[in-house]
Formats: sequence, C-alpha cells, structure tokens
Amino acid sequence: MINTDILIIGAGPTGLFAVFEAGLLKLKCHLIDALPQPGGQCSEIYPKKPIYDIPAFPEILAGDLVDNLMKQIEPFQPGFTLGERAETIEKQADGSFIVTTSKGTKHHAPIVAIAGGLGSFEPRKPPIATIASFEDKGVEYIIRDPELYRNKKVVIAGGGDSALDWSIFLTEVASEVTLIHRRNEFRGALDSVEKVQDLKDAGKLKLITPAEVIDIVGKDKVEGVSIKQGADVFNMVCNHFIPLFGLSPKLGPIADWGLEIEKNAIKVDNTLDYQTNIPGIYAIGDVNTYPGKLKLILCGFHEATLMCQSAYQRIFPDKRYVMKYTTVGGVEGFDGSKKEAPKAVVKSIN
Amino acid sequence: MINTDILIIGAGPTGLFAVFEAGLLKLKCHLIDALPQPGGQCSEIYPKKPIYDIPAFPEILAGDLVDNLMKQIEPFQPGFTLGERAETIEKQADGSFIVTTSKGTKHHAPIVAIAGGLGSFEPRKPPIATIASFEDKGVEYIIRDPELYRNKKVVIAGGGDSALDWSIFLTEVASEVTLIHRRNEFRGALDSVEKVQDLKDAGKLKLITPAEVIDIVGKDKVEGVSIKQGADVFNMVCNHFIPLFGLSPKLGPIADWGLEIEKNAIKVDNTLDYQTNIPGIYAIGDVNTYPGKLKLILCGFHEATLMCQSAYQRIFPDKRYVMKYTTVGGVEGFDGSKKEAPKAVVKSIN
Repeated sequence: MINTDILIIGAGPTGLFAVFEAGLLKLKCHLIDALPQPGGQCSEIYPKKPIYDIPAFPEILAGDLVDNLMKQIEPFQPGFTLGERAETIEKQADGSFIVTTSKGTKHHAPIVAIAGGLGSFEPRKPPIATIASFEDKGVEYIIRDPELYRNKKVVIAGGGDSALDWSIFLTEVASEVTLIHRRNEFRGALDSVEKVQDLKDAGKLKLITPAEVIDIVGKDKVEGVSIKQGADVFNMVCNHFIPLFGLSPKLGPIADWGLEIEKNAIKVDNTLDYQTNIPGIYAIGDVNTYPGKLKLILCGFHEATLMCQSAYQRIFPDKRYVMKYTTVGGVEGFDGSKKEAPKAVVKSIN
Repeated sequence: MINTDILIIGAGPTGLFAVFEAGLLKLKCHLIDALPQPGGQCSEIYPKKPIYDIPAFPEILAGDLVDNLMKQIEPFQPGFTLGERAETIEKQADGSFIVTTSKGTKHHAPIVAIAGGLGSFEPRKPPIATIASFEDKGVEYIIRDPELYRNKKVVIAGGGDSALDWSIFLTEVASEVTLIHRRNEFRGALDSVEKVQDLKDAGKLKLITPAEVIDIVGKDKVEGVSIKQGADVFNMVCNHFIPLFGLSPKLGPIADWGLEIEKNAIKVDNTLDYQTNIPGIYAIGDVNTYPGKLKLILCGFHEATLMCQSAYQRIFPDKRYVMKYTTVGGVEGFDGSKKEAPKAVVKSIN
C-alpha cells in the first residue's frame, strides 16, 4: 500500500504543478498515470510542439514544459505509479480513499485529486478479432521499453509521427523492422519522413505500402502477421506487432466512481476549491467542468493551487494556514533543499 | 482621446498577460499605470528577486518575468499610458467608459479591466510641511528619467536598495551626489552597500549619517535642503531632493468608482468572469477578492484569461467564439507576425 497526502490521478502539467503547491504546504503527493512517463498529452502526443499561451513563455515546447515542471517539483519528491490506470476507488470509514490500479497497486490518501485531462489515453486498435488475446504477448500499442525489441523481428503499423519515429529508432535495436501503412503517403515531420526514406533505400527498414495487417499468427504469442496488399494476402514472420494508430482519450473507469459527469467531464460545483460532489475528491484541469471553464493549461495551474489550499484545510481542520510568498519565504524541499531570495544585508558604511 | 477595446488599469503581470489573451481574441488593449514602466511591483520593488511559484519556472527573477511577458504580448501592440494614475471613470450612454488620468489623458473603451494589484504605489514621504509645493520642482519620489539629473547637485535620502542603487547610478550622471540616512546602517544587497562604501572612499559620493533632511530651501524650486545631524542643523545647496523611502500601495481613486470594496480589494461576485458590480468593469489579479482568493500571480493569469472571454462576449454579443488552442491555431499578431507549430508534411515514400 502506497500512502500519501494527496493522491493525484493524472501526471499531466496540472497534476505535476499540484505537487509544487502541495509541497509549499508540506503535503506529499503521489501520482498515478496510465502512460509510461509523466507529462500527459504534452509528453505522449506533442512533445515537440510549441505552446504559445503559457504565461511568460513566448514559446515553449510541450516536452520542455514538462521537463521544467519536473524540475520545479523535484524538491517535493513526488511518488509515481506509471503505466497503470486508476481503476477503482473505495471510501474508508475515516473518510480517506483507497485507489487500486489496473495492475492491482493500492494507494491510500485522505485526498484524491483527479487531474485526468481528457481521460486516459487509450490506443486506437486495428480491427483484428483476436488482437486482445495477443496483448502483452507480442502486441503492444505503446512502446514503453525499446529494449524489449532488442534483436527481435518487429512489424510496426501506422502512418504518423509515432510510427515513423519508432521505426527509425528501432532499426538500431531490432534485428528487423517492417513498417506497414495503408497509404503510400506518410504524415509527419519532414525530417522523419526523409529519414525513413533513407533507411528504406539503405535496406535497413522494410516498407510495405499500401497494405494492412489483417490477422495475427501464433499460438500463445505473436509469431507473425498476415498482410493484405491489394489483392494479395501473405504472412510475415515476426515477434512483435506494434500498431501505432494514435491514442484517443476516454474518461475510463473514473466515470463509474459516482462523480457527477457532464459532457465527458467531472462537474465541480464550485470554483472555490474545485471539489466534486464527493467530499475529499477534487477535479482539476481539463477533466473538470464548471460555468466559464476553459480547457487551458494555465487554468489547470490555478485550479491545482486553490485545490491544495482546500486539501490542507481538510487534512488539518484546526490549523490556520497563512500563505507565504515564495519571494519572501523561499521553497523548502522535502529533500532538505532550500531555495530563497538573497537576503538584504544590514551593514554600516564608515 | 485614446480608444481601445479593453482598457487595463495596472500594467503588472496580470494586466500584461491580459493583453495576450485579448489578442488571441483579436481585441486590442491599452494599459494605464502610475509607475513609469510596466511590470508593477515586479519591476519597481523587486526586479532582482527570484520568484519560485510561477508554473514551469523553477526560478525566475521578477524583472525577467516582466521582460518575458512584454515579449509575449509584443505581437498584440498594446498601448501604454505610464506615469499617470487613473483618476476618474464616467459611464457613457452606450455603456462604454471614459477613464481620465492624473495628467488629464482620456481613454475610451467598452471594457475596463482593473488589474491594479495592491493599488497604485504611493511613495512614502518625509514629514516636511512644505514638501508638496516642491513636487516636480526639484523633489521627486521616483526616478523616472535619470537624465533630469545630468550635471545637477542631487541629495538622496533613504537606507534601502533604491537609495543605494540610485546613488551609485547617479554618480555617473549628476555633478554631486549626497546620500543621507538616519542610521549608519544600510539595508540592501551586499554588493550595493560595498559599492557605496567604495564610492564614498573615492570621494565620488558624499555620505551624511545618521542625519535627516528636515526642511527644503528655495522659492519656486528646490535650491537646497536643511539637514539635522545630531544637535547640528545646516543647509546644503542642491537642485534636487529625492527621498526614496519606499512605496506603499493605496487603492487610491479607484475606491471612489462605485465598486464594491471589501478589505481594500474589489469584490467580484463570481469567478465566472471576475466582473464587478458594475457591468463592463472587471477586476483581476491581486486587486480583486472572492471566496477562496489567493493573491498569486498565477491566479491573476487565470483570471485575466476568463475575463477576456467574457469581454469578447460583451463586445460581440452575437458572435460565438470557439476557443482555438495556440498549439493548433498559432498566434497571429496585430503587427502581421505569425507564430505557429510546424505542420506535419504528407509525403509518399517510394
């Protein structure tokens, strides 16, 4: 059982910044995310895309935004349960919660903050009837650890940046990489498309287009795929089949937690602290809705900040917290680190 | 008459960021500030102080925060009326407003957003009965243009960073600089204190401590000051007397605009759009109050953003604005500039 003060579901920008604001109040956080790394959409979907509306950044790449936030919260030593989806929540007699993930990991906290963005990103799957039985047995929709493919034969399907970039990367790792796409045209960054062309010309990558994987061959694990190209259907031997057709957000199991849902988002009845209809459970960032809601990262930062104040009051109903400015009080990390503005000296001049 | 879409009173971080969010909606902004430069407290009081709680900046100097915001809003060409305090507001028959400053400059806009921080910063004045009659006639509490002091005899009073830093700076400009402080001890950055010591030792700066200026000598303008040091009182010839005793925030004339005031802040009855009791007048950032309010810069950013959406609806009641993400739609400046994410190419691989 993992114990913490605020259990944050979703490790996107809003969830990450909540760690900082909680840390200023000396509250510890643990984050759960279905994706294999922190940053949510920013890391998974558009790490190289510039964002222009983060205050005081005329331009910042989404991936850099996440890196900066990770650096900012480092002193507060957040815990992470990554690659696991929060599945169930049970309210305890004392008002606290136990949240269990898809892999059975249990987390216990007095406060749950759902910072789930548009939901957990579920991979779009190809319409192959038997595919579910091959998941984690050679079929992967997200590449979590490239080492899994060392000296293996890999078939990747897809026509976007993920398919292009992982095909390029895995030519250095796998013994054989085949990229299959249902069109001749690929949609991605220019240099990725050109790099794939070069690898293909050099014989380091096999390209089959326009074509589709229509079946998986194998008993207990993937042993090959069946490919349809025009009127031809043929089999190809491989150890892994990786369809990279993008991710689509789904609210997922959270939708069954008894929270008021409106238009696929969690209703917060107030903007005082962004608490849901279940006391002790908050919803912040893109996952919530209230009159006037804007799904912007900068709004998530504000919501996370107000949520932490309320969480503090809930955990310590008898303490009165007086907000201190970081310019005055500095930042004291749980790791013993201390950042503060240089103090003015008082010194006589003779 | 200066005409604009959103007239922003206060050019601190919140007011500046409002220009960006308004710009995304194609609304033009003009800012009024009593201080001689944009940035509010960040520029005037603590430009060299690190702030730790701006999201995605593990640390940023207040002055750099302002510089970044100025760069971010540059494409939206905001207008500025600086060094003038917003004094009066008159509602027009069509629901728009005319705001007149302390120097008589008139501004006309359908929307007024008060981003006045803790109020306009009023200088703390020394208790000299006649001082008001010498203001702008040799007595200045804020240095707006150092060139005013070129080859002049200057007396500065004060013991903090401002007094130290301007004394240092003006030794290169003025013909004579005298620093007067009621204690021997100065409170400031170590290197400033040391620099003043060096300048004094080198005879480039005259230091009189512990002492006080108790009177001003002159008819139509400052011709000298009267100084009390211990039991002695003596006169010193000078052209300028600059008391730098710090600034204290006062809500000022805004308090008389008919807005609901609570604890020296403007009440906004909702967190939907941060509108005040007078439709068309909004209050954002540290100047407003509502249940759960935190006086943090990051909250001002959020409030400014929601305010702009509401302002848009008020100006164009019949248009439906669909929010576009900057990651998707980019940023189109009023100056013809265009920033956007590199688009994916669609290219076939042969």
